[in-house]
Amino acid sequence: MESKVDIGPAALEEHRRLQGKLEILSKAPIKDAAALSIYYTPGVGAVSSYLAENPEDMAKFTIKGNTVAVVSDGSAVLGLGNIGPAGAAPVMEGKAQLFRELAGVNAFPIVLDTQDTEQIIQTVKNIAPIFGGINLEDISAPRCFEIERRLINELDIPVMHDDQHGTAIVVLAGLINAAKVTSRQVKDMRIVIIGAGAAGIAVAKLLHRYGVADILMIDRQGIIAHDRSGLNDSKRELAAFTNRDHRTGSLDDSLTGADVLIGVSGAGLITEDQARRMNTQSIVFAMANPTPEIMPGVAKRAGVAVMATGRSDFPNQVNNALGFPGIFRGALDHGVHRITEDMKLAAAVALAGIITEPTPELIIPSPFDPRVVPAVAAAIK
Amino acid sequence: MESKVDIGPAALEEHRRLQGKLEILSKAPIKDAAALSIYYTPGVGAVSSYLAENPEDMAKFTIKGNTVAVVSDGSAVLGLGNIGPAGAAPVMEGKAQLFRELAGVNAFPIVLDTQDTEQIIQTVKNIAPIFGGINLEDISAPRCFEIERRLINELDIPVMHDDQHGTAIVVLAGLINAAKVTSRQVKDMRIVIIGAGAAGIAVAKLLHRYGVADILMIDRQGIIAHDRSGLNDSKRELAAFTNRDHRTGSLDDSLTGADVLIGVSGAGLITEDQARRMNTQSIVFAMANPTPEIMPGVAKRAGVAVMATGRSDFPNQVNNALGFPGIFRGALDHGVHRITEDMKLAAAVALAGIITEPTPELIIPSPFDPRVVPAVAAAIK
Repeated sequence: MESKVDIGPAALEEHRRLQGKLEILSKAPIKDAAALSIYYTPGVGAVSSYLAENPEDMAKFTIKGNTVAVVSDGSAVLGLGNIGPAGAAPVMEGKAQLFRELAGVNAFPIVLDTQDTEQIIQTVKNIAPIFGGINLEDISAPRCFEIERRLINELDIPVMHDDQHGTAIVVLAGLINAAKVTSRQVKDMRIVIIGAGAAGIAVAKLLHRYGVADILMIDRQGIIAHDRSGLNDSKRELAAFTNRDHRTGSLDDSLTGADVLIGVSGAGLITEDQARRMNTQSIVFAMANPTPEIMPGVAKRAGVAVMATGRSDFPNQVNNALGFPGIFRGALDHGVHRITEDMKLAAAVALAGIITEPTPELIIPSPFDPRVVPAVAAAIK
Repeated sequence: MESKVDIGPAALEEHRRLQGKLEILSKAPIKDAAALSIYYTPGVGAVSSYLAENPEDMAKFTIKGNTVAVVSDGSAVLGLGNIGPAGAAPVMEGKAQLFRELAGVNAFPIVLDTQDTEQIIQTVKNIAPIFGGINLEDISAPRCFEIERRLINELDIPVMHDDQHGTAIVVLAGLINAAKVTSRQVKDMRIVIIGAGAAGIAVAKLLHRYGVADILMIDRQGIIAHDRSGLNDSKRELAAFTNRDHRTGSLDDSLTGADVLIGVSGAGLITEDQARRMNTQSIVFAMANPTPEIMPGVAKRAGVAVMATGRSDFPNQVNNALGFPGIFRGALDHGVHRITEDMKLAAAVALAGIITEPTPELIIPSPFDPRVVPAVAAAIK
């Protein structure tokens, strides 16, 4: 297995030094009574009176027009699981940094002291007026589905659970170019997805919407089929549009003849022998972090043609930072109230389009490529 | 009546130009994968793991150590009344600007889409983990009392309703110096407070705690006395420690022989004749905005010795901006979990002490005096 330097101690030290990775600044200096009377009392009263009568203009006169909440209950943080709000805080601050650095969006981290679905929904609704968008983050399944669905329906600002849709958009973008490299169409490929959690379900839905007809979902019990006993609501929903040939069996069975393997589950699941069962010119996205389901070197030996991971130290990093900054940038700039499935597809296509001549080692751009945010933002309208 | 230029149109235009008075910035540039891996994944995982185990260290590793929420439900905004969250937003942003500009504190405006007492309490508790303090603002009485009391008891970070305690601290500071100017002790003076809302009640309580024995509270029905019928809970509480001589009657009656008049109610309430009934060397704080209960020129004709208002265009502005920035600066720096009555008294004394030789025209410093925040902050410990 490839080795990796542990940067944990350095990161801990840097966080201790910074004492918070964000700062909230005034956009205008307030150094005298004249400034005070414009930005605060009595002048601000005119703005308050105006907005009380015209609340729909909040985005034009307050931070609402360029501010997003990054909201987590700490129930599914990175690969660390349910570590609560304190553990979630530095991740949400980091995400807020990326919103600012990559897309010029103000983002404020909200880490919740509740994991109750109704409490989360009510709390986000109660604090929503100052925000132009809500980025839900690291909330465990199945609560994340209900929370996102309700907030989308009950708020008039865009709400997106990034672990689902950010991942799905970047995966589809990568697949479009991986298909190009191997001279195929995404729609024609047989795609196996390991992991039927929040990310896996969103990937399956977006691929289906894109037109992929042959998708197999794998969970711990093997291939998900509509007549398998004990399916929960979300897996029943999956079974309705995946597994068109009514297959049953194990992960092993699913891989025979597969064109694409997408891993959004645990680590170390796929052996070299298993990878060999796939079709020629196979494509593997092994996104478990920090250890992918199969390491790139092993996959290469097994004949995999295009390989992507979630790691920055291998080529083709499937990184959510390619999605959320541009998605919310576009939503804010275009006054979008709801991020639709068509917008997500358009964002994936736009992201893929940045790489005009993809190769096995370059199917997705870097999140620091200055073309990424404008391209994605333009698709969200 | 003194005239005043209406700066409303200029303020509206400036707010439209700025499109939000705050910006949230990253304290470190994130321009490459190396930075990403320190501030975000995978490095941030070490910080998350540490804080999950040691949540009490959040203030050392996240923005919690220097960040305050400015929370309003928009129910009592400036003199505009119940104008809701949209109308409250520019005021709370302005307050956040002052936190930053005057005291280097990150402050984020939260305007609530609910005015239900229990919902507000629960929502603030749910979002509290990322904040090092809660500044409640412009919440109407009597809900503000219950909300503040419960949040103080149920959270382990400082919570303060600024309309109450910020005002009380600055009033006491001004009175200490006004007494000095007129060669008396605050404790010995007969003080009449017009207005028994949030600010009036807090002023009365802090003066009582400071040692003032003779306080009369006036509401629309006149002098508050313990045997007056129909008193609500907060007025019954007031009656227990004010009006020691069991007086009854009107505002007129209360002013005869009074040393100090503090107006925190409506405008235009006090005539020149009424002001004349007060003792010689009288002190008037007329803090209604934008029109004081009595204008300074009228008060002077009536023989008032020291006059303060809430306005920046007269001497002696009683401005909450003298209080809250230093109060939360001190609480954050000193790890204070609760702002006690003794701290409020110490803050008032410290604020008064900045003016070493007070005059009738100078009893309180400007909020831009660089000595203010350090002096107040030093008292909050």
